Amino acid sequence: MNPMMTTLLDRRSVRAYQERPIPAAVREEILRAVLRAPTAGNMMLYSVIEIAAQPLKERLAETCDHQPFIAAAPWVLLFLADYQRWFDYFEHCGVPEYCAAKGQAMRRPAEGDLFLACCDALIAAQTAVVAAESHGLGSCYIGDIMENYEIHRELLQLPQYVFPITMVCFGYPTEQQRARRQPPRFPMEAVVYRDGYRRLNGDDFAAMFRETAEREFHNQPFIGDTANIGQHMYVRKFNAGFMLEMNRSVRAILRAWREEE
Amino acid sequence: MNPMMTTLLDRRSVRAYQERPIPAAVREEILRAVLRAPTAGNMMLYSVIEIAAQPLKERLAETCDHQPFIAAAPWVLLFLADYQRWFDYFEHCGVPEYCAAKGQAMRRPAEGDLFLACCDALIAAQTAVVAAESHGLGSCYIGDIMENYEIHRELLQLPQYVFPITMVCFGYPTEQQRARRQPPRFPMEAVVYRDGYRRLNGDDFAAMFRETAEREFHNQPFIGDTANIGQHMYVRKFNAGFMLEMNRSVRAILRAWREEE
Repeated sequence: MNPMMTTLLDRRSVRAYQERPIPAAVREEILRAVLRAPTAGNMMLYSVIEIAAQPLKERLAETCDHQPFIAAAPWVLLFLADYQRWFDYFEHCGVPEYCAAKGQAMRRPAEGDLFLACCDALIAAQTAVVAAESHGLGSCYIGDIMENYEIHRELLQLPQYVFPITMVCFGYPTEQQRARRQPPRFPMEAVVYRDGYRRLNGDDFAAMFRETAEREFHNQPFIGDTANIGQHMYVRKFNAGFMLEMNRSVRAILRAWREEE
Repeated sequence: MNPMMTTLLDRRSVRAYQERPIPAAVREEILRAVLRAPTAGNMMLYSVIEIAAQPLKERLAETCDHQPFIAAAPWVLLFLADYQRWFDYFEHCGVPEYCAAKGQAMRRPAEGDLFLACCDALIAAQTAVVAAESHGLGSCYIGDIMENYEIHRELLQLPQYVFPITMVCFGYPTEQQRARRQPPRFPMEAVVYRDGYRRLNGDDFAAMFRETAEREFHNQPFIGDTANIGQHMYVRKFNAGFMLEMNRSVRAILRAWREEE
């Protein structure tokens, strides 16, 4: 197996880091790889904010579902879906006047533009994660950056056409993290289909959760008064406070994105 | 520089492939790497559809903005943001009854859940792209899969809580593609910020487009009656038919996602 495949197959999230800082040359190399990530129409519909200031890290550790390890991460990158840069450039280039001369209004970024920009931002983020792994750096995605939009908008001076889609913490893994076993994943048949979508049935679900049931729920009761993995996950994840907040916050971002200024 | 970094830095999109098929063992290895991609809460909120049937490839080559090279790609993977599998599992596990006993309605996937699932799907897609590169395979993202939702929904039997967020074509690059120069990217200062967002000004834009202007617009006139790069890109990309269709289609997906069935 080639070394890149080994790196990808051995990957696990790392939430505890050595205090050892990441050399500037390594960070620079990772960011250069990010700039080479595939991007729709070569438009680079994303931006990256390095979270360098410690007080800012500490604030984000709170606003991103109270995860103190974020404040202890040696390097934190926020990935933004970004149409603001292009929108500002269009204005700079006189596109509003060009449109007005044709009796049209300049189109503003809408939902499709946003999702395409999210693609760019996430492809860039995973490129950073893979580049970091090649340098022995562990990482952890923070989807919770989609929560508390109003706070993050002010904290990071986010303009209208910018969507904080994900954040990633990086650092050299502690010995304990390095030794941690990979969590189980669903088997391939449950995730990879052929030529069309396939709704799963009871037998499929049994196979899908076999390893999870054995490894994660063997000696551990389900949360509260739930009776099985599905009910447990509904309460613990899908209907948990952080997901309700993420849904509220994302709706607010979508509203802001669609507002005519 | 380590081989992974070299691979990431040398990467370019490949749209012309040798006829040489991709060995099953290589495809399997790439898919195993996909299953190991980071995923929110280990929930695997994505699915992959292998587009194997030739007539289906040909149809998608049409519906994804008329790009014949899609039909000629030896391997095509569609990445879905997928909450349907979990929603079906919740129902299978009696979550509706569990909620009803508490006098509550079971929550349905909303916008925040969708964006989180898009993160998973795109992280998986870029993992596949990187794994493929390690095997000498070129690839090209097809964002146009977000267009023509109604057609794709029927063609691929997509249920309500599934969003076709991206598609990727894979194949061994032709000699010509291998020799192709990498397109220019914006300089790092235009994309990577520190501790907050930075709106760019005229000087920034000049620096940002210097290489593009020299390489892409040196001998080539702007499209139609446009007068500069910004106006050209507005007409050629942002306000082009395929982007208008993508915006219409994504709005339809969002409506379907929010419909109470």
